[in-house]
Amino acid sequence: MAKWCRFNVDGQASFGMIEEKRVIAIHGYPFGTYERTNQSFELTDIQFLPPVIPPTFYCVGINYKDHIIQMAALRGKKPVFPPKADIGYRANSALCAHGDPILKPANSTDAFQYEGELVVVFGKQAKHLTYDNALDCVFGYTIGNDVSERTWQAEDRTLWRAKNSDSFKPMGPWIETDVNLDEMMTTIAVNGTVHTKFATSNMIFGIRDYIVEITKYMTIQPGDVMWMGTDGVPSNIKHGDQVDITISGIGTLSNTVVQLSA
Amino acid sequence: MAKWCRFNVDGQASFGMIEEKRVIAIHGYPFGTYERTNQSFELTDIQFLPPVIPPTFYCVGINYKDHIIQMAALRGKKPVFPPKADIGYRANSALCAHGDPILKPANSTDAFQYEGELVVVFGKQAKHLTYDNALDCVFGYTIGNDVSERTWQAEDRTLWRAKNSDSFKPMGPWIETDVNLDEMMTTIAVNGTVHTKFATSNMIFGIRDYIVEITKYMTIQPGDVMWMGTDGVPSNIKHGDQVDITISGIGTLSNTVVQLSA
Repeated sequence: MAKWCRFNVDGQASFGMIEEKRVIAIHGYPFGTYERTNQSFELTDIQFLPPVIPPTFYCVGINYKDHIIQMAALRGKKPVFPPKADIGYRANSALCAHGDPILKPANSTDAFQYEGELVVVFGKQAKHLTYDNALDCVFGYTIGNDVSERTWQAEDRTLWRAKNSDSFKPMGPWIETDVNLDEMMTTIAVNGTVHTKFATSNMIFGIRDYIVEITKYMTIQPGDVMWMGTDGVPSNIKHGDQVDITISGIGTLSNTVVQLSA
Repeated sequence: MAKWCRFNVDGQASFGMIEEKRVIAIHGYPFGTYERTNQSFELTDIQFLPPVIPPTFYCVGINYKDHIIQMAALRGKKPVFPPKADIGYRANSALCAHGDPILKPANSTDAFQYEGELVVVFGKQAKHLTYDNALDCVFGYTIGNDVSERTWQAEDRTLWRAKNSDSFKPMGPWIETDVNLDEMMTTIAVNGTVHTKFATSNMIFGIRDYIVEITKYMTIQPGDVMWMGTDGVPSNIKHGDQVDITISGIGTLSNTVVQLSA
């Protein structure tokens, strides 16, 4: 059981192990060989980085029944449930850390929203996994905020700027290796008021299903991440709003919106 | 003017500078600080790696008029031209090098095709570029084969396995820093017979247009790549077929299809 983070030590990105209220700087990679250094810091003194920069950034688009039903209703459309576990991608350029600002682009609309998601972090190279051994390649879990500009999401041919503009993918604060997936709750609060709460495990296709499907075609690499989608109907967020996404057994990812000017 | 490749030296990935018929191993990164080592190799003796592993892998889906018209006709549909320069993404997990096999999945259909594309390699961090200074962030150019399984492309909700299965993104053989974009021709041959030939510059939106659009929202990082799309109608390829994609002023990317069994 361990908590892993990434942070700057003397201007260089370093992995860290969190023990009690301190972070021990690590030489090497949590997914490979590493050793503890003699440098440690108060947890409150460090500036977090995204806990990993994935070689490949997998993301489940739609995976919670209530989210699909309610979002379709808002658009005046019938809900369409995914017939199989098709994965998608997000861009590393959009990643930011716990505590970093969510930068709302100058020309974005009011339809600017959070999505609180469980993030699976892979620790081993893997292909052709089965339902039974699917979780063997999982290193741990963290939290993601799949920030989305809904007007762009509806109008553009792809999700490039709707989901991948700079700072649209807060991830962190750390990776927790020991969790109970069945008992997890995801709670999303804006400025301290809870907006959404859902059982994290209430997915249409589970983590094992996605790993089995992906590894039929792709080799998962250590450090890859897979974001699992969100439930419920997100609210609009604006300049100054603080979004806290808490997943029980992991922690809380907090970021505040900053409106950019033209 | 320089030709940069990536290859294995003593089991470690290294960048290399190609001079005449030899490759000089480099310590460091072509986009940052580097120095020549005293190790050099015959070009014919090295095994290529993809010339860069991009932090973010941008890809233009549809960007050539004839390709859109002819592919739509094949599907019995009207051609739909992109109204603006929307970018998309591909997965690093799919990258392979010049000379590597293209692995045709056991359960893929006969509709298995190449797409020959110009690849832009970025060398500088950049945001908010203009049409006039857009090319300042470009380090050089290489060649990509956007291998596509058309049945999956039509049936799946995303392009995840249609475009991103292992080995579906051959890239290389090297990065050429000095090219004449206006005079480039892309020639695609299968088993030595030319199937497609097009003016590389005949794009709906040009490289500058995409860079201006992307950097309104995203920060380009050194090593990022942008694949520019293909023209014409690709042919099916099968076990044993050798695909050669030649772009004048760069070189030839060659890969042979290997059919996987279940």
